[in-house]
Amino acid sequence: MKIVSFPDDNTLLQLSQRPVYKQEDLAYTVKQVFDEVKLKGDSALLGFTEKFDNVKLTSGIELLRDEWHTQAETISETLKEAIQLAMRNIEKFHKSQVNDTPQKINIREGVVCWQESRPIEKVGIYIPGGSAPLFSTVLMLAVPATIAGCQEIILCTPPDKNGNIHPAILYAAKIAGVHKVMRLGGIQAIAALSIGTVSVPAVYKIFGPGNQYVTAAKQYAFSLGTAIDLPAGPSELMVVADDTADAEFVAADLLSQAEHGADSQVVCVTTSEIIAQEIAREVMAQLALLPRKAIAEKALENSAIIVLQQADEILKFINLYAPEHLIMACRNYDWYVNKIQNAGSVFLGNYTPESAGDYASGTNHTLPTNGFAKMYSGVNMDAFYKKITFQEISAQGIRLIGNAIEIMAENEELFAHKNAVTLRLNKLKNNA
Amino acid sequence: MKIVSFPDDNTLLQLSQRPVYKQEDLAYTVKQVFDEVKLKGDSALLGFTEKFDNVKLTSGIELLRDEWHTQAETISETLKEAIQLAMRNIEKFHKSQVNDTPQKINIREGVVCWQESRPIEKVGIYIPGGSAPLFSTVLMLAVPATIAGCQEIILCTPPDKNGNIHPAILYAAKIAGVHKVMRLGGIQAIAALSIGTVSVPAVYKIFGPGNQYVTAAKQYAFSLGTAIDLPAGPSELMVVADDTADAEFVAADLLSQAEHGADSQVVCVTTSEIIAQEIAREVMAQLALLPRKAIAEKALENSAIIVLQQADEILKFINLYAPEHLIMACRNYDWYVNKIQNAGSVFLGNYTPESAGDYASGTNHTLPTNGFAKMYSGVNMDAFYKKITFQEISAQGIRLIGNAIEIMAENEELFAHKNAVTLRLNKLKNNA
Repeated sequence: MKIVSFPDDNTLLQLSQRPVYKQEDLAYTVKQVFDEVKLKGDSALLGFTEKFDNVKLTSGIELLRDEWHTQAETISETLKEAIQLAMRNIEKFHKSQVNDTPQKINIREGVVCWQESRPIEKVGIYIPGGSAPLFSTVLMLAVPATIAGCQEIILCTPPDKNGNIHPAILYAAKIAGVHKVMRLGGIQAIAALSIGTVSVPAVYKIFGPGNQYVTAAKQYAFSLGTAIDLPAGPSELMVVADDTADAEFVAADLLSQAEHGADSQVVCVTTSEIIAQEIAREVMAQLALLPRKAIAEKALENSAIIVLQQADEILKFINLYAPEHLIMACRNYDWYVNKIQNAGSVFLGNYTPESAGDYASGTNHTLPTNGFAKMYSGVNMDAFYKKITFQEISAQGIRLIGNAIEIMAENEELFAHKNAVTLRLNKLKNNA
Repeated sequence: MKIVSFPDDNTLLQLSQRPVYKQEDLAYTVKQVFDEVKLKGDSALLGFTEKFDNVKLTSGIELLRDEWHTQAETISETLKEAIQLAMRNIEKFHKSQVNDTPQKINIREGVVCWQESRPIEKVGIYIPGGSAPLFSTVLMLAVPATIAGCQEIILCTPPDKNGNIHPAILYAAKIAGVHKVMRLGGIQAIAALSIGTVSVPAVYKIFGPGNQYVTAAKQYAFSLGTAIDLPAGPSELMVVADDTADAEFVAADLLSQAEHGADSQVVCVTTSEIIAQEIAREVMAQLALLPRKAIAEKALENSAIIVLQQADEILKFINLYAPEHLIMACRNYDWYVNKIQNAGSVFLGNYTPESAGDYASGTNHTLPTNGFAKMYSGVNMDAFYKKITFQEISAQGIRLIGNAIEIMAENEELFAHKNAVTLRLNKLKNNA
């Protein structure tokens, strides 16, 4: 892992850039799949599943509840207990975010305004396929949807070539409150969730990660009017380390993010050249032992250890980079907390590895990558609600603010807007 | 205005559809403008302004503060006072939404998680041009941005053919806390806010309404990674009226929304055929007197008064339609409040016209149209913040949850994730 010591501002700006990948233009393919799903519904879904996933779903797209719940129970008790512990923590943290007591505000006499939250009625959760079953993501999306009270929580995930879904995904879906499980992946899954078919209900918002096909399909669904959780990008981690950091731990954390994908990026920032060198050595030593060594190695090519003079330069770089994950392995992390402006999720102290947030600390692991922490929150309870404003104005209230409305509407040349107030004020005058 | 009495479910579904307009495909034009702004910066902006707005901006794109503040003062005292009153109300309501005391949650011993809100540092506000100056929208977007503490609030609005901006927009911008005013409209304004030039800072999120060019440009900016407020659509209003409603008021409210644009839609729902007929008559009578009669007339072609049997059918239709604005002109509106799931902003009682929310009740008028209230909130304080999660785990904390993380990571085949925990647990064992 390369070490960059005392870079100038321009170099720091370059170091804050993410690797750019030439994305295939998938717009044509995506539109074709959506059009066919719109036209032919379930039969299009079955056709695409046969074509892309090499499986003929003779028993339908939905995995019926009995089969789903039975298969879910086939995982080991040890794994069940681990998933349960994670779920309880995620539940506790996300429940703490709910505050549904509307606060009525007396704007002035007779003018009362307030907001109320309502769950999004129908949500879709996409879970990618592949060798490893991402059951942790099922928890991260289904638990808050259930807490919010979403009425239809539909999970789509591609079947293996025997038409099966990994039982750990089914177990997480079962205990987290998913309502329906669909054996459906790729563009066709997003199309079905966005448009709706006989088997797959259309939803109002789609959550979850995916490859570039899924990402392009979510973008297209967004342009058709379905909400999505977050713009996608490769995972990333920044670690701030001083001489109290444990080089072994920091190296392990950097590698845990690097193993996600060849396009991942990890950055370590420190004021100590000694610890920088120790961490670089440890990364190489631990890398050699990893099953996903090839992937992590590729990611490390995009990565660097940066040595800076002092804490306020580090702070500035954190906010410039806007990391998805940020580990503060330094003695004065309290000094940073209030000043961190742009980050997805922050891990404080030597015993707070990033993988804790991925699985079981209770925070959500669906986070803004690629600098999107500058304008997006990670998934939290807000993502499953929308807020409605209410206002109640009495005769006295409209007497107090009516004239201002008339003047403003007139100056915006919206005379019917003005008239709606004038008629009311006149009636009140006539009745007085 | 047509009256539809006791429609069946299928007809109701049709009545919940918005008019569909063939949108021009503007993707090519939008991309060309963005590419040129990226390549040539300010000189591209000046060129497009000359081409589209017919004005040569010899004194630059930014309207400098002295000139801005001087011109702002040229509006009448009456209008200033009206804008001030509106601003105080908007401020009071939006400030009431701020709760920035982080709540630390003890997930279990040694595992503490919390969320903190941070303002989006740079935001852009687009205000359309045209004959009428939409200064109310300046308040609706700049007031909450200022309360949140956004550090750069950049307003773009097209200049008239003399290079001027309406002083009412300048006044609202001045008192609401806008930092910079740009004489810039259309696609080029959105491109500048998204990409950044020497004169126009790039922002992280763009707010504000606009014509189909602006809408297409905001969509494109979103695909490039700039956040946007809401998907756009024509304005709309639903009024629920019983026999306690005032037909004159309801007609005025329906027309106040109909005058927005030929593609607006207004719907009145009632259980009383008598009031339905009275309202239809009143609409025709008031329409004749409106300056924007032609526009409102066109909008009324998309509109209907619907007579239903009872309150729960009305409730079902409200939630199916998901109106941007909803006026409850009926005696039992309290019965509805808790049960309304999908709406942008709700106006309760006979003295709460929709135009109050457009200008001065305190609620925001940037709201989800086109059924988007099913999944989006209107603009509120949340739109100007992102939330960061923090977690702090002690040695004892990782002892309690570490094993669950190891098991889950192993089952997701992410061995470096597991290793980050194992190393820590081992060190604690060795130190014990």
